[in-house]
Amino acid sequence: MIARYSRPEMVSVWTAESRFRIWFEIEAHATSALAKLGVVPQSAADALWAWWATNPAIDVAAIDAIEAVTKHDVIAFLTWVAEQVGEEARFMHQGMTSSDVLDTCLSVQLVRASDILLADMDALLAALKTRALQHKFTPTMGRSHGIHAEPVTFGFKLAQAYAEFERCRGRLLAAREEIATCAISGAVGTFANIDPAVEAYVAEKLGLKPETISTQVIPRDRHAMYFATLGVIASSVERLAVEIRHLQRTEVLEAEEYFAPGQKGSSAMPHKRNPVLTENLTGLARLVRSAVTPAMENVALWHERDISHSSVERGIAPDATITLDFALARLTGVVDKLLIYPERMLKNLNRMGGLIHSQGVLLALTQAGVSREDAYAIVQRNAMKVWESDGALQLRDLLGADTDVTNCLSDSELDSLFVLDHHFVRIDAIFDRVFGAAD
Amino acid sequence: MIARYSRPEMVSVWTAESRFRIWFEIEAHATSALAKLGVVPQSAADALWAWWATNPAIDVAAIDAIEAVTKHDVIAFLTWVAEQVGEEARFMHQGMTSSDVLDTCLSVQLVRASDILLADMDALLAALKTRALQHKFTPTMGRSHGIHAEPVTFGFKLAQAYAEFERCRGRLLAAREEIATCAISGAVGTFANIDPAVEAYVAEKLGLKPETISTQVIPRDRHAMYFATLGVIASSVERLAVEIRHLQRTEVLEAEEYFAPGQKGSSAMPHKRNPVLTENLTGLARLVRSAVTPAMENVALWHERDISHSSVERGIAPDATITLDFALARLTGVVDKLLIYPERMLKNLNRMGGLIHSQGVLLALTQAGVSREDAYAIVQRNAMKVWESDGALQLRDLLGADTDVTNCLSDSELDSLFVLDHHFVRIDAIFDRVFGAAD
Amino acid sequence: MIARYSRPEMVSVWTAESRFRIWFEIEAHATSALAKLGVVPQSAADALWAWWATNPAIDVAAIDAIEAVTKHDVIAFLTWVAEQVGEEARFMHQGMTSSDVLDTCLSVQLVRASDILLADMDALLAALKTRALQHKFTPTMGRSHGIHAEPVTFGFKLAQAYAEFERCRGRLLAAREEIATCAISGAVGTFANIDPAVEAYVAEKLGLKPETISTQVIPRDRHAMYFATLGVIASSVERLAVEIRHLQRTEVLEAEEYFAPGQKGSSAMPHKRNPVLTENLTGLARLVRSAVTPAMENVALWHERDISHSSVERGIAPDATITLDFALARLTGVVDKLLIYPERMLKNLNRMGGLIHSQGVLLALTQAGVSREDAYAIVQRNAMKVWESDGALQLRDLLGADTDVTNCLSDSELDSLFVLDHHFVRIDAIFDRVFGAAD
Amino acid sequence: MIARYSRPEMVSVWTAESRFRIWFEIEAHATSALAKLGVVPQSAADALWAWWATNPAIDVAAIDAIEAVTKHDVIAFLTWVAEQVGEEARFMHQGMTSSDVLDTCLSVQLVRASDILLADMDALLAALKTRALQHKFTPTMGRSHGIHAEPVTFGFKLAQAYAEFERCRGRLLAAREEIATCAISGAVGTFANIDPAVEAYVAEKLGLKPETISTQVIPRDRHAMYFATLGVIASSVERLAVEIRHLQRTEVLEAEEYFAPGQKGSSAMPHKRNPVLTENLTGLARLVRSAVTPAMENVALWHERDISHSSVERGIAPDATITLDFALARLTGVVDKLLIYPERMLKNLNRMGGLIHSQGVLLALTQAGVSREDAYAIVQRNAMKVWESDGALQLRDLLGADTDVTNCLSDSELDSLFVLDHHFVRIDAIFDRVFGAAD
Repeated sequence: MIARYSRPEMVSVWTAESRFRIWFEIEAHATSALAKLGVVPQSAADALWAWWATNPAIDVAAIDAIEAVTKHDVIAFLTWVAEQVGEEARFMHQGMTSSDVLDTCLSVQLVRASDILLADMDALLAALKTRALQHKFTPTMGRSHGIHAEPVTFGFKLAQAYAEFERCRGRLLAAREEIATCAISGAVGTFANIDPAVEAYVAEKLGLKPETISTQVIPRDRHAMYFATLGVIASSVERLAVEIRHLQRTEVLEAEEYFAPGQKGSSAMPHKRNPVLTENLTGLARLVRSAVTPAMENVALWHERDISHSSVERGIAPDATITLDFALARLTGVVDKLLIYPERMLKNLNRMGGLIHSQGVLLALTQAGVSREDAYAIVQRNAMKVWESDGALQLRDLLGADTDVTNCLSDSELDSLFVLDHHFVRIDAIFDRVFGAAD
Repeated sequence: MIARYSRPEMVSVWTAESRFRIWFEIEAHATSALAKLGVVPQSAADALWAWWATNPAIDVAAIDAIEAVTKHDVIAFLTWVAEQVGEEARFMHQGMTSSDVLDTCLSVQLVRASDILLADMDALLAALKTRALQHKFTPTMGRSHGIHAEPVTFGFKLAQAYAEFERCRGRLLAAREEIATCAISGAVGTFANIDPAVEAYVAEKLGLKPETISTQVIPRDRHAMYFATLGVIASSVERLAVEIRHLQRTEVLEAEEYFAPGQKGSSAMPHKRNPVLTENLTGLARLVRSAVTPAMENVALWHERDISHSSVERGIAPDATITLDFALARLTGVVDKLLIYPERMLKNLNRMGGLIHSQGVLLALTQAGVSREDAYAIVQRNAMKVWESDGALQLRDLLGADTDVTNCLSDSELDSLFVLDHHFVRIDAIFDRVFGAAD
Repeated sequence: MIARYSRPEMVSVWTAESRFRIWFEIEAHATSALAKLGVVPQSAADALWAWWATNPAIDVAAIDAIEAVTKHDVIAFLTWVAEQVGEEARFMHQGMTSSDVLDTCLSVQLVRASDILLADMDALLAALKTRALQHKFTPTMGRSHGIHAEPVTFGFKLAQAYAEFERCRGRLLAAREEIATCAISGAVGTFANIDPAVEAYVAEKLGLKPETISTQVIPRDRHAMYFATLGVIASSVERLAVEIRHLQRTEVLEAEEYFAPGQKGSSAMPHKRNPVLTENLTGLARLVRSAVTPAMENVALWHERDISHSSVERGIAPDATITLDFALARLTGVVDKLLIYPERMLKNLNRMGGLIHSQGVLLALTQAGVSREDAYAIVQRNAMKVWESDGALQLRDLLGADTDVTNCLSDSELDSLFVLDHHFVRIDAIFDRVFGAAD
Repeated sequence: MIARYSRPEMVSVWTAESRFRIWFEIEAHATSALAKLGVVPQSAADALWAWWATNPAIDVAAIDAIEAVTKHDVIAFLTWVAEQVGEEARFMHQGMTSSDVLDTCLSVQLVRASDILLADMDALLAALKTRALQHKFTPTMGRSHGIHAEPVTFGFKLAQAYAEFERCRGRLLAAREEIATCAISGAVGTFANIDPAVEAYVAEKLGLKPETISTQVIPRDRHAMYFATLGVIASSVERLAVEIRHLQRTEVLEAEEYFAPGQKGSSAMPHKRNPVLTENLTGLARLVRSAVTPAMENVALWHERDISHSSVERGIAPDATITLDFALARLTGVVDKLLIYPERMLKNLNRMGGLIHSQGVLLALTQAGVSREDAYAIVQRNAMKVWESDGALQLRDLLGADTDVTNCLSDSELDSLFVLDHHFVRIDAIFDRVFGAAD
């Protein structure tokens, strides 16, 4: 976790205290279930919950001190709880193994993290939609290969991002489902010393589903899928960040991150206004993605489990979720406050002497009976002149002076091919697809 | 693609000829749709399909030769088709851009690849189920950390793999859905020069869905998710492969890859029988996983698209699908023919002097009123003696001579804690979860 | 290997025939050494070399057919050679194990690949130096965060790339050294059945060093380091490719990839000239980098070796070297033929109303006694006006009208701060550092 | 950073306070150099060093508070220092840019981190050497593919690890060299407003070399190489960890991590002694390796720099170095205290009925004139019987009863092929190679 790239709510999911609280709930619910089954006295469960009702502070340092001796975290925790609750606590953890607690706890934490991330994405989607609708018909240059292609609208660009993050939201929901399982199945997953009803009870209390079949642990393909999904979402964050960085380039400057009063862009150059937030997001995306491979390497645990995954998850589980939470929130802020310059967009769009209409001419020529190859050659030879004039020449003019063109297309036909709005006739239909017909 | 790790059906998805055939179908379907809309003459579509009905050979070399001049693959293809079909072909590709063809083609190829992989997984699941049911109650050692833990059955191990691959199958279905989209939306995705009805028509003909909103290309978050999913599946392949490699270790030797007559394990050591297939699968898993990061790096294309993803996909799309197809088939063969040695499993299980029952004793002592800590200490001190005797001492005997134990548990109570079948009482219930109650 | 991204010389390193030729040389040299030691008859070595002197064709298909039965590639090869050479061949491979041959062969191949890559880098360095010297004093905008910063020269940019690739060359030399080792140490590396003198002899003949200590195999940390190095070089390729892509953006257009006559930029838009080569290089860099993680995962082989690394290396060894070779050659071509537009560079440089000189003013004010904070504020407030005017206002003019400035700096002092050449006073010194003082 | 996997010395390299201290030293040394050049008054440098001589506390919170306004860390720091030092501080940072400070600071931190890691490796090498010499002739099974191959000694295994870590040490030294550079070259690396002598002076004071050519930043190929090297070292850590995990498997149990009194292996199973340290190391290796790809993705910064690398390095620089430091120290402890069981090694070695001598027989038969193919078949058919008897039959006995063997080899010749020490005749020579002839 990098403090400056973290937000409190997500950080709190991963504190030692949160973990111990979840552990307690798992153990106490399990004890309740065991009591119902008659395996342990009801008084044991009652004692645990009675203590819990006092809203006791969790003494993390005390538990850590016990672990320093036992070298086993769950045993340390159980020992500490037993010191607080008294003799009845000895029925806790009956028939369970540490991983029952640890893995179910990780599921709870990842579910909570997912819920925060889902809320983040909702906020991002809302911001994207607002700005997309504002700029639904703001003309801007569409670029492929970094080169002017044909016009789009700025709202269209944002609608693309909206659709992408809506897909990401769906993926995150699926990933949340992947890891929302509970395993209380004992030392090797056979339920040899514990009734599956305990697992079912705890799962239901915690909003999880029982794991179909566990070994000692919940199988790590689930977690691999989870972190892979975060990696994809991070890549989509990077994509929108890179788009904005491009738009803010000095020569383009069609949009700009909000620049706060008092902010300094450079210690040396007082004139600088840099897209530092989206640059930062580009880096954060790399960090989130770096969790993917180790999560996949965690899958092939030896036999019923080895513990090599544990240190990996102590790193990537908080790091990837905290970083992605921060990134999504930062991106939402960027979108919300983005400075958008329609005049500059139009100026850029018009700088290439009408080349953006070249395809329309090509199509009109083929419709008029010219072969595709010839039509391409005719348009290209005129376009290259415009290109090399750096916008000084206009494609419309050159075509109007090219008899291979004027033999096929009248002046008014040619004019009709150089109309900007032609490019936006389907924007309504596309917005309906993206945001639903009601919008 | 590594020839020795490939199978013909999947390879054929990725040949130049397959690609050109799909390109033709996209172009011809689009021409049909354009004819319906009155944009091009019906005769243009008819000419294309009439030629196609002759089942023409695709002259890959001729198309390549044209590309060597145009440096543009789709234009080269269109030129070649026009040479074959004649003048009517000039209406092809009207209002489309190359990526409409390339990206929709990639979708078709990935869908076909997915269908092969799904069939592979069905075969693997069937093999796992068969062997799992055969060995539903074959006792074998459960191991955590590579150390004896408690007994499981060999069928239970395979049921775990079955459940994991069933999850993987579900993920692959979702991944197939991710990439089964069609984009025919023109140079920057605005449908400026083409009616969305063309996209809808082609999509329907090819079994795809129209992409909600494309730029020039289908957004690469879809492909990232696809390859990430293959990476997870590969990791599950690795897990089962590593399990079998462990079981075949000389000291364990509970299972063994089938060893063909005439096979040689080592050029130097005639006695060797090595788990080379599962070792190979371990390596193949690494190869498939190596596609994940580049696929994610492909997401952040510049503006409406750059073409950096293309070379990446020329590599990873065939490589990852061909390798995973081979790996799944190889794994199925390994499972099918796996030599399984129940006697050796039992021998290994019994080698540790009954330590596998230590938890039962611990629980019985706590039930009998001993504190958890004391019970743990009592069992551990006896267990350590057995451990250090390397199986010469029996835990049952030592406990029977420990008055802290005999004060709480009678001889017959102790005996009842050392029964192997106790560990398998839930195997039926677990199999019901995994395979359904009917099995 | 992707055929279109490969060059024949590097491909030939990795053919089956090349491999078998190297195998033969290893075996034959080893037999010579064994003969000298009196372990095998000299006639055995003579027979092998006599056959080799006939320059025999290698019948790859025949060897493959034998492997289909033995399922062991080296045994298949030895069998085939024995069929050709006759009875004397039975002394081949005496005391050796397959990995002695396979691993030493891989070393030879990687050395050859390295030598090709080193030549590629020399060509790239030469191209960079030529263009750097041509444009040593061509002014161009320096940009940080994509935003105008201060002027540099185009030659300075290329000198930076030169220095980076010179570092990469050094790394590649070190990586070549890493994998240039020979192991002929028998089944587990103990030389139990073979004299270390054989290893020393073969190593010397093949231009390798004896591996200090092998197990059955050459340790894979060497190969991990090798592929990691290729990954770093690929990242440097990406950097220069991205630079050129940025320079070719329509709004920037300070440089452009050479555009061949007959080339088509887009099937739909005849006006397009896209930086497709450098975009391609960006993707190829991702592919080369994808070899790094599997190579690292190959290090932790089990005990004296497992064979999981083998399938990985069959993929990444040819793929990464072939792709990087192609990428370096392509990049060299791009640099060689790059269209460079000094006028446009100057135009862009001047478009921001002199903001590029803001730091000089800041420093002059502090030298004149203004506090750093005040100086920054004074310059920034004027710079922001220029910034927002989109180049309509000139910083020099605004400062000349700001009494906080004119109180400290005279008109001529201010003028002296707006001189472009001021930025280039150290270019000579920097070039001396990069290219040596002689240039 | 994961607190439980960190050690104080390395953590202290990365604290905010350490960073600010290094920043001050860079700024103050630069001011000294500027004073020598007459650019700033000597009193400015004197004031800075005078304040520093008071050993002032760094008020991290105060600096952070300023950054919250300026959104620029270096400016915040300079402002705070100016508040402490007074008016003379305004000459600090003259002609420099933030990256001059940030990047040079990172170099200092990475150098310090490297020095700690080098010391770690020295300790590890010492431990490996000690244990290797202790067990130079302790026979143990060599295994390929997890299957018994031929005997080695336990010291030989450790010598292999020693050689590998000695290579890693060399790589780390080279990586340290890679990042030990200083850049004080101004806003775009042209030294436009600062004399290169400043850079040279600061570099010398800090034990760095001047960067040959920087842009605004030190080029990130250096850092990519650095983290790639850490990834390779981590992979070697994993290799030795996996070796020990294998050796501790219940059925093998030839070595064991030290098990502390009071330690508990499992909350459920009191008999467990698990190789948790080496399992942990396996996971930590994955974490360190996860830094490699983002570091490579950092190379292709835009133009003279973008800042996307910064967030990545805030994560990976401390995380990878802290984790690797911890891992090396943990591994050293494991090696130091490793419980080694020579009797068990011998027992395992002997369990396969003498199959470990199969190659010797094969060679003797070929020496006696049998063809390689026939010899292989003779030995294999007897070996397979032994193999299938699970050690009940002895290869020596079967061969002695096989006339194809006895026709060639006398009884005493056969006996001489079944001598364990035969495998160790080169151990002395190998140790000389690894540790030098003196040992």
